[in-house]
Amino acid sequence: MRAGIPAESRPAERRVAGVPDTVTTLVAAGLAVDVQAGAGAHAHATDEAYRAAGAEVTADHPAGRAEVVLSVQPTEHVDRLREGDVTISFLQPSTELDHVRALRDRGVTAFSLDLLPRVTRAQTADALSSQALVAGYRAVLTAAERLPRFLPMFTTAAGTVPPAKVLVLGAGVAGLQAIATARRLGAVVEAYDVRKAAAEEVRSLGARFLELDLETQTGVYASQQSEDTLARQRELIADRVAASDVVISTAAIPGRKAPVLVTTDMLKAMPAGSVVVDLAAESGGNVTGSVPGEEIRVGDVLLYGAKNMPSTMPAHASRLYARNVANLLLLMTRDGEVRPDLSDEVLDGCCLTHQGEVRHAPTRELL
Amino acid sequence: MRAGIPAESRPAERRVAGVPDTVTTLVAAGLAVDVQAGAGAHAHATDEAYRAAGAEVTADHPAGRAEVVLSVQPTEHVDRLREGDVTISFLQPSTELDHVRALRDRGVTAFSLDLLPRVTRAQTADALSSQALVAGYRAVLTAAERLPRFLPMFTTAAGTVPPAKVLVLGAGVAGLQAIATARRLGAVVEAYDVRKAAAEEVRSLGARFLELDLETQTGVYASQQSEDTLARQRELIADRVAASDVVISTAAIPGRKAPVLVTTDMLKAMPAGSVVVDLAAESGGNVTGSVPGEEIRVGDVLLYGAKNMPSTMPAHASRLYARNVANLLLLMTRDGEVRPDLSDEVLDGCCLTHQGEVRHAPTRELL
Repeated sequence: MRAGIPAESRPAERRVAGVPDTVTTLVAAGLAVDVQAGAGAHAHATDEAYRAAGAEVTADHPAGRAEVVLSVQPTEHVDRLREGDVTISFLQPSTELDHVRALRDRGVTAFSLDLLPRVTRAQTADALSSQALVAGYRAVLTAAERLPRFLPMFTTAAGTVPPAKVLVLGAGVAGLQAIATARRLGAVVEAYDVRKAAAEEVRSLGARFLELDLETQTGVYASQQSEDTLARQRELIADRVAASDVVISTAAIPGRKAPVLVTTDMLKAMPAGSVVVDLAAESGGNVTGSVPGEEIRVGDVLLYGAKNMPSTMPAHASRLYARNVANLLLLMTRDGEVRPDLSDEVLDGCCLTHQGEVRHAPTRELL
Repeated sequence: MRAGIPAESRPAERRVAGVPDTVTTLVAAGLAVDVQAGAGAHAHATDEAYRAAGAEVTADHPAGRAEVVLSVQPTEHVDRLREGDVTISFLQPSTELDHVRALRDRGVTAFSLDLLPRVTRAQTADALSSQALVAGYRAVLTAAERLPRFLPMFTTAAGTVPPAKVLVLGAGVAGLQAIATARRLGAVVEAYDVRKAAAEEVRSLGARFLELDLETQTGVYASQQSEDTLARQRELIADRVAASDVVISTAAIPGRKAPVLVTTDMLKAMPAGSVVVDLAAESGGNVTGSVPGEEIRVGDVLLYGAKNMPSTMPAHASRLYARNVANLLLLMTRDGEVRPDLSDEVLDGCCLTHQGEVRHAPTRELL
């Protein structure tokens, strides 16, 4: 069977779902691989490198020839996919409903990496985590470059400048990576997460964990908290925001509206020149007023609304994503044939459409 | 006597020569201080903060009322300066000859921080070093943000990405700070300097020092080497450039043309997506084709020509610079009177014009 890797067509999507290394892996698993010409341009993977890895480089989008289409954003050309064809991508189950319907109606077997179960066997395919790693790293670089001051402390003959204070809201993969990167650069870091279990990881990275006097429900994400709890949380966070030179907010959950953790009044209390990076901007924002892809001045504070942050570092983001995708595909491939066994809990968990059915119950309810 | 701090007027100059802290210092030394309204805007020092520190905020440029003008770029309004007035700035003795003539003809006592002697007593006024520190730090952030890959190594469930390789050319203050920052971010760093004495400092920062099989003259800067030596040096560096994801070149000496260390062919041999930051771009460039303030693609490599790098981080760059300027001014101030004693080797070394004379012999020769 044949797998195909298209050039991504959505604006500002610079990643690609396969790199020469993963082409080698797929070819070794007995698959033929088509790569659309120029697919790896932003990730600095040349057509020649794909060919050398065993791919055929095609002028056109692989849909309609390949039985499996691997992409970052949901596959274009759904109308060329045939019954039984397989797709793997970051298909958003709650917001791309037209796409889901089209895949269902054509009998396509579509897997969404957004739905990958968080079980050990699925870890090598965990693209949400790998891309969150990139986002957390990039968030700190973005803030550091825009900050009018140093992150590290410096001692010079003329005196000392103190280290910058960085506050990270949300200690998931992106948050932990932001903490680690800010610490590497010498900042003093504090972090908060509604899950108290995150405290140990935060501390192991050399950051202070903020203990808020808040009654929280165990195992509940920030976005699922009541408005009362959120209001109390903002109240308790406010003085830490006001003491920070950089705030990085990461409390986003795919498919849900992000909770507002920082209000405009809280921004205005920060030191002049401070930078706030809202990694949740695309899902409504943790910070009032953040706009994906835009830098806004709120008083003397710069508010950066992140938009597809992993795509700003396309070579390594693609490399990690491509490995995740290849690992998921290998779970359903034997002797060069892709035959997903939906009794496998990993495949079952992330299969969105199959044989004319939408398999994900919350999505079914939205249709 | 009265010292004045103007708002800098040159394009893209975002620093300021005094911050509220240093105003306090000058006031304590018995000086009155004028600060032009808005002078600290980019450095996030408000007019109110200057007032609170004891300054008078003036609508106009302080020249003509203040007896001492402290600035980053050479003072504007030379025509308003009076005989015996004092200025301190980064006045370039070899390239700003019209300015030097005007200061001489008006009988102004002008000090240039470019000429500060490298002696222990002058260290607290060493603005070239403090600003080079900023430039080296910023160069790495600039490169990291533009690189399509991570600087640190990452180990994920789906495999490892290796650390980026960074090559720093020139191990002066800027180069050492670039090494330290790249190491902080987890890169593997190599560095080269024509002065073999730099090896120990480079190694103490965790970087590898490149030993080139090159006959060099001890105590000679790269820019003073013969063209033969430079050609041989480029030949020996070439394979290290080709192995690097980031090159940061720092071999600039104020007032001299920078040596070419990296040619276009060398750039083209680098991995696709590599980033080169040329901190010497304003003095001719260490890299063929670099243009100050521009990002150029040379094949698959991004060549960033630095332009006034310290100014991209105005708050801390200003804070360090302001302290340097204040320290130099205190060397010539007693009981609120600024009376430079030119028998002091520090003041003698950096005094460019005084009582109608150009005191710096190389500049005199150019006039």
